[in-house]
Amino acid sequence: MTRASLLLASLSVFALSLTPAQAQSELLTEARDYFQPIPHSVPTVADNPVTREKIDLGRMLFFDPRLSRSGLLSCNTCHNVGMGGDDNLETSIGHGWQKGPRNAPTVFNAIFNTAQFWDGRADDLKAQAKGPIQAGVEMANTPDRVEETLKSMPEYVERFQRAFSGEADAVTFDNMARAIEAFEATLITPASKFDLYLEGNEAALNDQEKEGLKLFMDTGCASCHGGVNFGGEGYYPFGVVEKPGADILPPDDKGRFAVTQTADEEYVFRAAPLRNIELTAPYFHSGMVWDLKQAVGIMATSQLGADLTDEQVEAITAFLLTLTGEQPVVEYPILPVSTSATPRPELMEPIKN
Amino acid sequence: MTRASLLLASLSVFALSLTPAQAQSELLTEARDYFQPIPHSVPTVADNPVTREKIDLGRMLFFDPRLSRSGLLSCNTCHNVGMGGDDNLETSIGHGWQKGPRNAPTVFNAIFNTAQFWDGRADDLKAQAKGPIQAGVEMANTPDRVEETLKSMPEYVERFQRAFSGEADAVTFDNMARAIEAFEATLITPASKFDLYLEGNEAALNDQEKEGLKLFMDTGCASCHGGVNFGGEGYYPFGVVEKPGADILPPDDKGRFAVTQTADEEYVFRAAPLRNIELTAPYFHSGMVWDLKQAVGIMATSQLGADLTDEQVEAITAFLLTLTGEQPVVEYPILPVSTSATPRPELMEPIKN
Repeated sequence: MTRASLLLASLSVFALSLTPAQAQSELLTEARDYFQPIPHSVPTVADNPVTREKIDLGRMLFFDPRLSRSGLLSCNTCHNVGMGGDDNLETSIGHGWQKGPRNAPTVFNAIFNTAQFWDGRADDLKAQAKGPIQAGVEMANTPDRVEETLKSMPEYVERFQRAFSGEADAVTFDNMARAIEAFEATLITPASKFDLYLEGNEAALNDQEKEGLKLFMDTGCASCHGGVNFGGEGYYPFGVVEKPGADILPPDDKGRFAVTQTADEEYVFRAAPLRNIELTAPYFHSGMVWDLKQAVGIMATSQLGADLTDEQVEAITAFLLTLTGEQPVVEYPILPVSTSATPRPELMEPIKN
Repeated sequence: MTRASLLLASLSVFALSLTPAQAQSELLTEARDYFQPIPHSVPTVADNPVTREKIDLGRMLFFDPRLSRSGLLSCNTCHNVGMGGDDNLETSIGHGWQKGPRNAPTVFNAIFNTAQFWDGRADDLKAQAKGPIQAGVEMANTPDRVEETLKSMPEYVERFQRAFSGEADAVTFDNMARAIEAFEATLITPASKFDLYLEGNEAALNDQEKEGLKLFMDTGCASCHGGVNFGGEGYYPFGVVEKPGADILPPDDKGRFAVTQTADEEYVFRAAPLRNIELTAPYFHSGMVWDLKQAVGIMATSQLGADLTDEQVEAITAFLLTLTGEQPVVEYPILPVSTSATPRPELMEPIKN
């Protein structure tokens, strides 16, 4: 073989291998415009430096049912770290077996959301953490009673003092929320198949998943469900093209309208983050849809007026399943023991047996 | 110095050092007649070889709320591994916020009990595990629905097949209980101060704790609260000398009588195991006493007719606090994801908000 023919041969091999690689690269380039990967290490948190002391304290608080009035419910009850970071219920069960108004969002990767709750009424996780603890339908507690509880246990007092050293009164409801936020910042799920893809391993997605990714971007899903979390960044009316049925969009829950009192925010909700969507059924704020394919179909019709074929819905669904990341490894904390000063559990009219 | 005077001198040193050592040794000898230490490794379990596959599967099942009809309550809800292995409630809260009839016993070291439940109605932990899952006031589920749930998730099916290899139908309610028992066998708390003492380190207890130990044996407590678990081995009437008040011994709960239908077993209960008693308030089957000293006083009067001084009660209490062992380190399991075949959560008349 001459040098020229060698060169030609190697060029044609190069060209052959380049063509599909180039096509994939366009998809990857487009994907990188819309999405960012979950980082491999704990992110920094605004106004709340994440330290080992805070993480460990936050983990204890996250699992401590004594943050609830009943002594039965902890953050983990509804944001179960073994179940994708939520409770897999339509809407959560709280104090006195009350049924909450909305589906519990996952705590995983929540640190990357622009705002928290379905209506974005909390700016960050430290604001969010204070909500369910006080909500009558959830943990039904008060900041004073929580502080009394935490101050009654010497180990908590010591741990707050270490985590918030230099503060004269370290054991506060606010610092409780900061510690919980620091722990929650560790609940991230990197290394999903899609993240490997975004990082440049184009073989991490198969053809159907790539087709789904393309459809997800070209049909318009990614306009609301973009960023690190595939959502959690902006607010949109549910049913912008066609309102779904009252079972899925209950008329009495007007979403962000309750926060802003602005008429054009009726039925406006935060676009749900779609990371680990495989693990967080049932779907929507009403929790009325258990099947992911059905949820994709509803979104296409109600939000985009798109009439997708079954194959297209299946491809998008296959793509969404690539968003399942490595689940966080959490050691169950050994909680401080109650003392005679710890407020006793207060139940709500329990049904006597 | 002559050889004779040297000998005398060394003999007298020997005698001086021997006297207190001998006194301690007598206490230790007596203690070893009554009690055995918690072993440092997982004990063998009758009819249920403990394997890594079973432990891991059992850990998942122990934390899985889908074993309950509501999808909300797991074994860990009432036997919280971060809180001494129980729920720190007077009596547990179950399905529909029903209040259970008795205080939840700790799961820690329960593998060493001769029988399970306050009335000993289950011979072992694999029999015990099936109880609360089916009790209407607790998890309110059925064996069929549990098996349907477990069979709906491929990861559970695989794990059951590995843990119970060779069985044609591995995913059964019985095998679920065996796996839970295997995991619970790992929930032991060795190396308490008292265990160090029993192992021969006589300095592990201080003088007050030793005085408490002596009183615990000489007053008669140890006759019922002996063995590895300081109880959990025999059945005794509550109030054998003097019945406590109806708040502490509710007249409608006749204890073991319900199991044996024998008149002389009215108000007979299993002597409660006292390991980690520091962590498992409130006390008694009614859960009506939160203070350990008060519980000791009640036991002395009602069971032994002993009128202990405050100092004596305090010494016994100080001794009981030496029974807190190393708490087990448990990694929170990542649970298999539900499928379309998984039975949906069924709530009980939730209070609508």
